[in-house]
Amino acid sequence: MAEEALFQLLHSEIIQYVNSVESGESENGRCVSKLEGMGFRVGQGLIERHISDCRFTKDTPRFKDELDFMKFICKDFWTSVFKKQIDNLRTNHQGIYVLQDNKFRLLSQLSSGKQYLEHAPKFLAFTCGLVRGALSNLGVKSIVTVEVSVMPACKFQVMIQKM
Amino acid sequence: MAEEALFQLLHSEIIQYVNSVESGESENGRCVSKLEGMGFRVGQGLIERHISDCRFTKDTPRFKDELDFMKFICKDFWTSVFKKQIDNLRTNHQGIYVLQDNKFRLLSQLSSGKQYLEHAPKFLAFTCGLVRGALSNLGVKSIVTVEVSVMPACKFQVMIQKM
Repeated sequence: MAEEALFQLLHSEIIQYVNSVESGESENGRCVSKLEGMGFRVGQGLIERHISDCRFTKDTPRFKDELDFMKFICKDFWTSVFKKQIDNLRTNHQGIYVLQDNKFRLLSQLSSGKQYLEHAPKFLAFTCGLVRGALSNLGVKSIVTVEVSVMPACKFQVMIQKM
Repeated sequence: MAEEALFQLLHSEIIQYVNSVESGESENGRCVSKLEGMGFRVGQGLIERHISDCRFTKDTPRFKDELDFMKFICKDFWTSVFKKQIDNLRTNHQGIYVLQDNKFRLLSQLSSGKQYLEHAPKFLAFTCGLVRGALSNLGVKSIVTVEVSVMPACKFQVMIQKM
């Protein structure tokens, strides 16, 4: 049985429910923010378990710089959650990273077409939080935003916050 | 990275959020019912995808009777969601099935001890719905309840509803 379906279906249920609860005047702002917060805590949890698994196998991950963290997010972390790697990683070498996914799983349920673009933020908020939470538990504070041009492609922008 | 962690963490987030929204007078009843409903739709979705995958591979599942459906739930379905099989399946041969999981994943986050037993229904409602939804999309109407004696073991009781 397809195992990734479970995550996708559960993610849809959460969006629907949070949307029904938080819908109101503020243009989906509260809904998006709740979903981002959930993603943040799940991202933190995934890294916690990853670190404790690494301790168990004595296969401690070593990151020598910021770029190493981002490569880990694009490869291991993305594959674990979305069953594929990020297609393209770019950086300005000044703390901004752009992670492009050409076929983002959580958007593929949404029909393509401009009329659906307005719903995209709800389908992306959890993942923005997920990346922010993962980085946070790796000791990196960041701001994560996202942009969709043609569905189901999207670009996550990670701005590392210097201490 | 541990892939099952994603489902467990997301499941916890849902419980917390639904609980915070639906908490009130009716003794968790609304919270449990919302979670059960989410599980129902996710269970339906998992079976839909399973059936469409089977069509694709021409590996159509064949069920000759009610017991076959239940064996499928205990083996393939449970493994796909919880990474283990149901430990024990019993039936009275009159439409009642008891599925025992001796180490139910979604309870293992809860501390054992009697004082936590009151929270167990919230941690089990989604799964009751999951089983009911899966069976429903296999054409079997049922009522699914659950009972915990010593955590993290639990028994799901499935009562098949005759048409």
